[in-house]
This record gives sequence, C-alpha cells and structure tokens, in this order.
Amino acid sequence: MSQSTSSISVKKRAIVLGAAGYSGAELVRLLSQHPSMQLVAAYASEGRTAEPFSSLYPRFQQQVDLLVEPWRDSELTDLAQRADVAFLALPHEASEQLAPKLVQAGLTVFDLSGAFRLKNPALYPEFYGYQHQHPAYLVSAPYGLAEWITQDELEQSLFAVAGCYPTASSLALLPLVKQQLLAEYSVPVISAVSGVSGAGRKASLSTSFCEVGLAAYGFFSHRHRPEIEQCLGRSVVFTPHLGNFKRGILATIVVTLAENVSKAQVDAAFQHSYQHKPLVRLLNRSPNVADVAGTPFCDLFWQQQGQQLVIVAAIDNLLKGAAAQAIQLANLKYQWSETSGLLAGDPYE
Amino acid sequence: MSQSTSSISVKKRAIVLGAAGYSGAELVRLLSQHPSMQLVAAYASEGRTAEPFSSLYPRFQQQVDLLVEPWRDSELTDLAQRADVAFLALPHEASEQLAPKLVQAGLTVFDLSGAFRLKNPALYPEFYGYQHQHPAYLVSAPYGLAEWITQDELEQSLFAVAGCYPTASSLALLPLVKQQLLAEYSVPVISAVSGVSGAGRKASLSTSFCEVGLAAYGFFSHRHRPEIEQCLGRSVVFTPHLGNFKRGILATIVVTLAENVSKAQVDAAFQHSYQHKPLVRLLNRSPNVADVAGTPFCDLFWQQQGQQLVIVAAIDNLLKGAAAQAIQLANLKYQWSETSGLLAGDPYE
Amino acid sequence: MSQSTSSISVKKRAIVLGAAGYSGAELVRLLSQHPSMQLVAAYASEGRTAEPFSSLYPRFQQQVDLLVEPWRDSELTDLAQRADVAFLALPHEASEQLAPKLVQAGLTVFDLSGAFRLKNPALYPEFYGYQHQHPAYLVSAPYGLAEWITQDELEQSLFAVAGCYPTASSLALLPLVKQQLLAEYSVPVISAVSGVSGAGRKASLSTSFCEVGLAAYGFFSHRHRPEIEQCLGRSVVFTPHLGNFKRGILATIVVTLAENVSKAQVDAAFQHSYQHKPLVRLLNRSPNVADVAGTPFCDLFWQQQGQQLVIVAAIDNLLKGAAAQAIQLANLKYQWSETSGLLAGDPYE
Amino acid sequence: MSQSTSSISVKKRAIVLGAAGYSGAELVRLLSQHPSMQLVAAYASEGRTAEPFSSLYPRFQQQVDLLVEPWRDSELTDLAQRADVAFLALPHEASEQLAPKLVQAGLTVFDLSGAFRLKNPALYPEFYGYQHQHPAYLVSAPYGLAEWITQDELEQSLFAVAGCYPTASSLALLPLVKQQLLAEYSVPVISAVSGVSGAGRKASLSTSFCEVGLAAYGFFSHRHRPEIEQCLGRSVVFTPHLGNFKRGILATIVVTLAENVSKAQVDAAFQHSYQHKPLVRLLNRSPNVADVAGTPFCDLFWQQQGQQLVIVAAIDNLLKGAAAQAIQLANLKYQWSETSGLLAGDPYE
Repeated sequence: MSQSTSSISVKKRAIVLGAAGYSGAELVRLLSQHPSMQLVAAYASEGRTAEPFSSLYPRFQQQVDLLVEPWRDSELTDLAQRADVAFLALPHEASEQLAPKLVQAGLTVFDLSGAFRLKNPALYPEFYGYQHQHPAYLVSAPYGLAEWITQDELEQSLFAVAGCYPTASSLALLPLVKQQLLAEYSVPVISAVSGVSGAGRKASLSTSFCEVGLAAYGFFSHRHRPEIEQCLGRSVVFTPHLGNFKRGILATIVVTLAENVSKAQVDAAFQHSYQHKPLVRLLNRSPNVADVAGTPFCDLFWQQQGQQLVIVAAIDNLLKGAAAQAIQLANLKYQWSETSGLLAGDPYE
Repeated sequence: MSQSTSSISVKKRAIVLGAAGYSGAELVRLLSQHPSMQLVAAYASEGRTAEPFSSLYPRFQQQVDLLVEPWRDSELTDLAQRADVAFLALPHEASEQLAPKLVQAGLTVFDLSGAFRLKNPALYPEFYGYQHQHPAYLVSAPYGLAEWITQDELEQSLFAVAGCYPTASSLALLPLVKQQLLAEYSVPVISAVSGVSGAGRKASLSTSFCEVGLAAYGFFSHRHRPEIEQCLGRSVVFTPHLGNFKRGILATIVVTLAENVSKAQVDAAFQHSYQHKPLVRLLNRSPNVADVAGTPFCDLFWQQQGQQLVIVAAIDNLLKGAAAQAIQLANLKYQWSETSGLLAGDPYE
Repeated sequence: MSQSTSSISVKKRAIVLGAAGYSGAELVRLLSQHPSMQLVAAYASEGRTAEPFSSLYPRFQQQVDLLVEPWRDSELTDLAQRADVAFLALPHEASEQLAPKLVQAGLTVFDLSGAFRLKNPALYPEFYGYQHQHPAYLVSAPYGLAEWITQDELEQSLFAVAGCYPTASSLALLPLVKQQLLAEYSVPVISAVSGVSGAGRKASLSTSFCEVGLAAYGFFSHRHRPEIEQCLGRSVVFTPHLGNFKRGILATIVVTLAENVSKAQVDAAFQHSYQHKPLVRLLNRSPNVADVAGTPFCDLFWQQQGQQLVIVAAIDNLLKGAAAQAIQLANLKYQWSETSGLLAGDPYE
Repeated sequence: MSQSTSSISVKKRAIVLGAAGYSGAELVRLLSQHPSMQLVAAYASEGRTAEPFSSLYPRFQQQVDLLVEPWRDSELTDLAQRADVAFLALPHEASEQLAPKLVQAGLTVFDLSGAFRLKNPALYPEFYGYQHQHPAYLVSAPYGLAEWITQDELEQSLFAVAGCYPTASSLALLPLVKQQLLAEYSVPVISAVSGVSGAGRKASLSTSFCEVGLAAYGFFSHRHRPEIEQCLGRSVVFTPHLGNFKRGILATIVVTLAENVSKAQVDAAFQHSYQHKPLVRLLNRSPNVADVAGTPFCDLFWQQQGQQLVIVAAIDNLLKGAAAQAIQLANLKYQWSETSGLLAGDPYE
C-alpha cells in the first residue's frame, strides 16, 4: 500500500460550528487544505438556512463548495462515528452549552470563544454577562496559547483557544514575565488596535463603512483584560481600539523592567522563548499589521531605553488570533508539524 | 434699525425632515451656516426618539447642537407660522405622503427623494415598488437640476431635487443633447461609482466595513436610469457601482457624436452651458472624487477622438448630489447668490 | 527510486528577473510553492544592491528567504546549466533587450512586460515611446492569454504574457467575438478600475496614500487599448481608472449584440469558452474585486437587455493580470495541472 | 464710514511660506476665508516654479486661485510695507534661517516647524540633526499651544507653534500636571497614531498607498518626545504610529494618579482648564479621529479606575496640530474671537 493512501486513511475528520462568521470561515478554508484533517461538515448557528459556503463567501467559489447547514443537537447522536474533532466559532454562550456535549460525544473540541478561557467562574457574570454552567470544564480546559501550552495540557479534550488581543499581548509579555525581568511594580500598558473583522460578521452601524475611523473602547472593562491578567499573573492596563482596516491587531506595550536588566537579558528572554517556535517571528524592524494580515504569524519587536521597554506585537486577528491558532493547537496535539496546513508552502517541505 | 437686525428679520425659516440620515445631516450643517436661512427645527422619522444632532453626529458637538425630534403630523397645524421652507431627506414613500401636506400647509418644499422626480406615474410601480398617489404633483413639481432649472419652474412650491447619479450624468450630457451634438443612434454608456454613503445610514451587511470592495449593481434596473433618460430625452445604458470610499460619485460616460462634430463645438457646448454656473467646474485634467468630496461642485472633463467622446463627471453624492443642490435651488428661487451658504469663503466675497 | 525523489528530479528550475516589484514578488511567492518548479534565483534590476527578499517584503520573513541579487548580463553565460525557465517582470525596454538573450541562452521565457505583446511594431513608438529592436520576436511570441492560447503557440520559447486590463477585457469579450454575437458596428465600451499596485512599487506623488481617490486617466491613449484591439480584432473605447484599493481590476463593459441574439446564445458562448477553464468563474452575481484579490481567478458576470449587454470582469491585477497567468501558461506548456501552484488547496485535490 | 469698510481697512495682511505642503495648503485655505486677515501672497520653497494654488490642489479650483511663487530672500526688502504676518510651514532648517529675518523685517511670525520649539539648544543636534544658530530666539519665542499660552507670551513676535503629537498629548496631560494630580513616579505612556498626511506631501515609498498599514516608529527617539517633556516638565514614554488614514491623530495616554485622587478632582481639572476654551471639547464618549478630521478641535475623554487614568485625545494633525492652531494663536494675539476663521459658522455668530 502506498504511503499516500495510508496517510489519507488516518486523516482526522473535522467539523466546524459557526462556519458563517469570519473566524469560522477561516477555519473552513484552513481545514479544506490541511494535509492531515478532512473537513467533513460545516455548521452555522441553529435556525439559519442551509447555504453553500461559496455563497456565504463568494471568494471561495470553485474552491470550497461544501454546504453550511444549521446545527441541530440531533447531530450529536453517533457523532463520533462521523467526526473526530470539532472547531467552534460560536457565540460564548452557545459554546458554553455545546462544547461539553461534544466532548461527551467523544470529540476533541477547540473552542474559539471565551466560554472556557477564564479559570475563575466569578468573572463570567461581570465580563460575559452570564453565570457559567460548567465550572469543572474551566478547570480542565487548557488555555490555548499554542507557544506556551504544555505536553500535559495537550492531553485534554477541550481547548479554550486564546483570544485575539490576549494572543498578541501574552506572546509579547510572557518571555519577560517568565524570566522575571519586569519591575515588581510595573503594570504593563497595552494599547492595541484591531481591524473591523474583530467585531464579527453582522450588520451594525458601528462597523459600517462610513462610520469606522479610529477610536478606543472598552476602557478597563474589556473581557480580554482578565484573560491577559490570568495569563500573565499580573495586572495590566488594556485599551483596545477599532481601526479602519479589515484584518489584524497591532499591540503596543510599555513595561518597566527590573533594575539593571540588560538588553542582552531581554533579547535572550525572547530568543529562548521563541527560537523553536515557527509562528513567532522576532523582527529587527517595527511590525506592520499589513505584513501579518492573512498569515498565521505573530511578529514581535522590542526597544529598550533604561528600564523602559516598548514591545510591539502584530497578528492577524482571525488567524493567529483565532482560526490558525486553533489549527496550530491541533497540530501540536496530534504531533503533526506545528505549521501544518497554515503556510502555503508547508506541504512541500 | 441696523442692517444686521434687518437682515435677520427676513431670513427664511427652514426645517429639515429626515435629519438623522447622511443627506439630512448635510442639510442641517449647511442650513446652520446659511446667511439667509435660519434652521428652526430638525426632525427624524416618526417613531424615533428625540436626540441631539451632535449626539447623532459627534463631529458637530459644540457646533450644531439642536435637538432632532421625531416628526408628528400634528406639527402641520399652523406650521406656516413657524417655518417657510422644508427640506425633506426621507424615504421615497414617506416623502410622497408628506410633501403635499407641507405644500398645502403653505411651505415651499425641496424634496431630496425620488417621490416626485419621474413625470410618468406608470414608472413608479416598476422602479419604486409602489403606486403613486399624487400624480398631479408629478406634473407640477419641477425637476431640480439647478443648472438647468428655468425661472418659470422656480415659481413652484414643490421641487423634486435631482438624484445623485442623475446629477452627475445629466450635467455631463445635457450640453451635448441640447446642442444636438450626439449621433442619433448613440446610446450613452454611463459607468458610475458611488461612495458608500450613497446607501444611507443604516446597519447593513452589504455596507459593512469588511464587505465593501468595488462591484457593479442594478444592471439596467436602477431607478436612476429612467430619471436620467427623462432628463435627456433618450435611452442610456447605466451601470452603477459601489466603491470603497465614503463620499463622492465618479461617472465615466461614453457617447458617439454626430458626424463631423468638432472639438470646438463640444467645448463650446460645455462653455455655453456652464460659463455662468459657479458650481460646475470645467477642468483641464481628469476629475478625482477626492477633489469634490465635501464640496458643492460638479467637476467635468471630456476627451474626444473622432466621433467618440468620453466625459467624466465628479460630485459629492451628499452635496451636489443631494443637500447642496437643494440649497442651491433655494438660493435660485429666493434670488440669493447661487452659492450662498455653500462655500466657506462665500460670505466674504 | 521513490516517486517523491523522481518528481523532484524533473522540477523545472526557474529564475525571476524584476523580483523587487509587486508582480515580481508575486512570481517569487508562487514559484516558491510550485510543486513542479524550483525557484533557483531571483534578480532585481541592474545597479540595485543585493537584498534578502524578506527584507524587501517583510511579510515573507521565515517563508521566502532567498537573496535578490542585481542582474548582470554575465549571468547569461552557461545559464541553461542552471535554469530552464525565466519569468521577467521588468520595465518594457529592459525586457525587450533581455528576453531575446535569454531565449538564445536556451531558456523558456515568460515576459510580463508589454515588450512583445503588440504584433505591429509601428505601434511601439506611439504607445511605448521607443522603436522596437526585435520585430521578429513580435511575430513569433504568442500572446499569453492562458484560456485562449493554442497548443501550437505553447511550443514557442518566448511568451508575451497578457496585460492586466487586456486580460480582464479580453476574457469578457472573446466568447462573444468568437461566436460573432456582437453587432457589426458595436464598439465595446470598457471602463475599468485598477488598484494602486498596478502603478508599480515606486515612490510617486500620484500613488501616495493621501493623493489617491478615484479618477480616470489615459483617455484613448493607454497602451492597453491597442493590445485589447489586437486581441479582439476590433476597436474599443477603453477608459482606465485608478481606484483607492491595493489590488484588483474591475472592468465594466457594454456592447451591442447583433439583432436577435438570445440570452441562451450569450450564455452558451461563455459556457462553451470556459466550461473547462478552471481559473475563469462564471458567476450568477456581480463580481467584487475583493473576492478575487489574492486569487488567480477571473470572475465574469453578464446581464442582457434587448441588444445591450453589460459584462463585468474582475481579476487580481498582480495575479491573473500578471504573475499567476505567467505560471498558468507554464503549467499549460509543461502539461502540468492548469492550476498547479496557484490554489492553496491544489496539491490535495 | 460704514463698519464693514473700516473692518476691511484694518485687516492684517498675511503671507504663507511653504504653501505647497499639506499644512501650508491648510494655512492658505483658512487665511482665504479669515474675516480679519487678508492673504496677500503664498510662497513655495526656493527653486520651485510658480504654480497656481488650485493647480497644486485641484480641490480649490475656483475657490482659491492665487499663484504660489517660489520664495526669494529679495522679498524681505520692504516686506513690512506689504505684509504684517507670516505663517511658515517650512522644513525645520529653512524656518530656523528665515524666521529671524522675517521678524527683523518687522513681521509677526507663526512658525509651524520645530525650529524654535525646544528651549534647550543642546537638543537640536540629537533630535533635529543640526546645531541651532539662533538660540536667543529659542528663549524668546513662546511655545504655541494656544489653550495654555499667556498674555505676556502673546506680546512676542515669533511663535513656535506646537507640534501635532505634542498638541494632542499636552492638552490631555497639562490639566493633570498643573493640578499636581499625577503620582510623582508616574511616567505617562503615550501611544499615538497619525494619519499619513503627517509625513508631508512628497513621493516616498513608505507613504505610498500600497505600503501603508499600521506600524509604530521612532521608539524613544522621536523629536516630539523632548517637546512633550518640555511642555509637561516630566518624562514620558512616547510611541508614535503611522496609520492608514489621511488626517488625524489619536493619542491614548495612560498615567498613574497620586493616591486618593478622586474622579471629581480629575473632572474638575479638565473642566477648569478648558471650560472657556472653545476648541477643546470634553466628550462623554470615546473620541474618533473621523470626528475631528477637517475640524480645528481637540476632543478629550478620560476614564479612571483606581489610580489608573486613561485619556484619549483626538485632533486633525494639519489643523489643531498645525495650521488651525497657528491661526488660533493669531486670533488670540490680535484679540479676535478665538475661533475666528476656523469654524464655517463663525462669521455669522
């Protein structure tokens, strides 16, 4: 039997829930070309009508032509006979309800919502507006920041894929935190600008073409603040902005280093953290959102003056900040190449 | 009595209906600074809640701070004691209902909708989706293309202000039509691109930031086609497009000239038509929407080769294509300077 | 010997000249991931300094890291021992000088410039500003519009890859021309808008961010007009525009059909022409440049009313209008899958 | 004699130097419609050719049609007989050379460059790259931040109009600094995004349409950092960014308040500072660059949590950040209405 046939036979069968949204569409696109996964079904929210994916997203005509069907819980019956992995790009509360059922049905679940990210259930009423019904999963579900997840965590069946702003912010700050290079009193100041796709695919005056400019929002109260703080183990000031571009996040972060921390120490912290991480690029120039849009990379750059350090992180909010990171986590879990299916050139390596 | 007091005493008192939309907001802005009109009230559609104009449009904070109140037909009582002129930026059917009542209440009405533009009532079901209830007004209401309106027409009380695409198209073509320079068989081909504000201020997926690109729509069936054809007295092929900018229309028009029409004849037709028209600019370079956005001008340019002539017209769809043209018509009716209140520098001339 | 080794052993070795420009960069990107070609070298114009590709285009850091070296004619010596195919994204005059030398050195050449597109050398002084030095190659070099090239033409060694506007325009019109569906007197009217990348990668006030709006240019005189006319065998009126987006061309074309041509005949002409052409998509909705940007597709749509037909074509000017079409031609010449290396999902089909 | 004639007779005669650039063009526009100043001449840099303003900026055709002539130092002879006030929008070094000559010629000079902003001449070599030749003027020229300039300072003849980023940053921070509300150790963190017009009107690859995204630059080293620090009397971390919009600056600033500073104290500081300042708007919502573009306003908003305070400031970089502020300073110096000539509605007040 040829190797090619055999490799097809062990492909993981994947489903996408929430395929009509921007992140869900990226999941569909990426899974359609993943060498080790086969996209077997894509679902939209309950109550929508079935529609071809290429009708929802005309860009994909003649490329990805599967039907996006409305999800019904009756699909859960015998689901494990048809699928191995579920990727969820659903509203938070929908994910909170559905993810446990999918796990119990025998699937491995990568959830792109915030439903399982915060370990402290008390934060849900304040930041998500509802009481969490599945606190046990909050404990067990690893936080899905791919470069920092552990082998033990990869054994789990439900993954809370990191949010977009937290991915950019935490990848920028964790090397310093882990190496204890920050001044004890330093409260990192994170100013981040997201493209409009971060607001989701829906009709809204605030994201209509004529209304978008550049403005901050969610002062102190954005739900990604506790997520970043949980990931770092310290307080931050986080100010998100909506900017007039489609895709990408640029996070500019200022911290105070501990006394006498040298540039070499800072450089070493980043090098040590990411030298074997193919989707984090340590740049020698200032990152531009235009250079990561459409890619699975996180670009990092930093400049130090005395105890002050500015770090800039750039990602595509829908890819490294959502869909591509979910695929990356699956790649790690199943021990495929970390970039499998994420770089166009990947399959030819 | 000082001149200043006296000039205030003869100001026309104006109201705006539909002040929450983009064209309505431009009316509010222009009337707020018009030297001969006083904006006495601004109304939103029935059923909306009262809201300060500067809350609807934060740009105008501390500049235009009047309250936009929902319209109620009870306002019609004794309205003539409070207002002289009404500017309507309402949905077509709302205008069709309300404009006659305002005229009967004694006001002069400038209607920015399509409700009274087409002289043939039979076209309304096909192009507007409803049966016209006031065909007599279709006959009496002059078509409000300011550069071509006649003194007789200015005597009327209800004006059907020209549409945005028809303004650009007709200003480009009427000089040739009037001088009979077109080949008899020529069917002008009009390709025009509008900014997104042309679609109005409302939440809609098709005008959301991430969805807008550049695409044609309304092939053969756009309601501005019969309006252009009525204005020119001949058939056209009209293809509108939605482009990724906020304001402006660029119309590129190709016609076949009658045999032996010289460049001098074409030039003379435009010169003759517009030499005394301050808001049409005959350029010696290709117009750019960026150069008319925010202005009340129509920029025209043409190039001829043999019998073929390309004309390009650029306007701001919300100004020369809507609000500024309505003001311009009022200026003409009341024999103020044609550009009064439309050019920032105007009062100092 | 394994199949994988054997397939590598027959890869064509490709070089890119003009790799620093936008089209050249797309060639580098596409060749880097092509399953049947190996990019062995990339050159910039003579006199530039050597620079890593990912420094010219930071987006490709850690993906495409080859060095872009300045071309020197000394490379011609024994070049056939190092390369099989050359892709040229050079200025017209540079291509005109270099392409014949590369052919004589034994390479197959795909030239993206206009240097060999016009069969009548007399047109070069008027439209390109220089006297053509290699008229024999004008005769032999096939016009590289991939869907219409013949098997005989594919035997040649120098290909004049079609221009961006002509690709969109000719793909839209050739089905009608070949089936003789146009009225004899019909002069197709083509209004097309190109993204700014069409102007090339260079510092210029006219393409600087603050200056771009939407404007027509090159009335009657654009060098793509004779190219389209040559391809169709009839006159056209062609008006290009520069729009405020980065990539893509939208061409809106109006023609007069011969009498009594039915919708079924028009549909059949398009179906017949493109049913087996994987990179032309016949849409049932209006194409949007946003849906083809970044893809190798040409999207077509048409609407008929009586004898009038409007056709809309959308392409990515750098891909189907330049680099991807060159690869597509190579795929055809070497009898690989027509889409090989052009669709991310391609290798898994 | 009528008041109108008399008011014309006392108009200040103004000239603009550097009229070809974006800030200079705004000066020309504003001065053309200023009720108390008359624009008598506009000059471009030495060596340029004379060109009508409306040819440089086609938007102003038929509105502002004066000739922009190249400056020659011979104009200095008897200049005071022809002009009272000079507005300079020149490169820093050109201003440094010319401003003293204009003052000595008897003119009042408003300089928009950085040539006289820094009081410490030692900073010029580091931040401007040249040795300052006129340190005495550094001492005497007031820093032109209009809301904070004193009556004494207004007696001077040379004004160093504040820079764009410093205007936004200092207007946001001075109320807190003056009221001593910041924690002693607090180092304000300023992240600011500027539109591309901030880079000036010149052909440059970095500001070309296809290259602009969103990126930080000038880490720790931007020349506006010492300007802000001088204005505040304390250190800041300042990170500017270039964003993909034409006009505007959004500055997001994070500070640590002194212990026990209440929200009421913060509110009072802003109210106290700006309640009588017509061009600073204290908003109750997050400012958007789109709402200040084209206006002379600075919009401010702040949110506090514990000792942390986020302040957002938005301005038009060419207006409140350059030309309008210069006019505002002239208005103050000559005791005209502070907003004279800056708000379209102003003359009718």
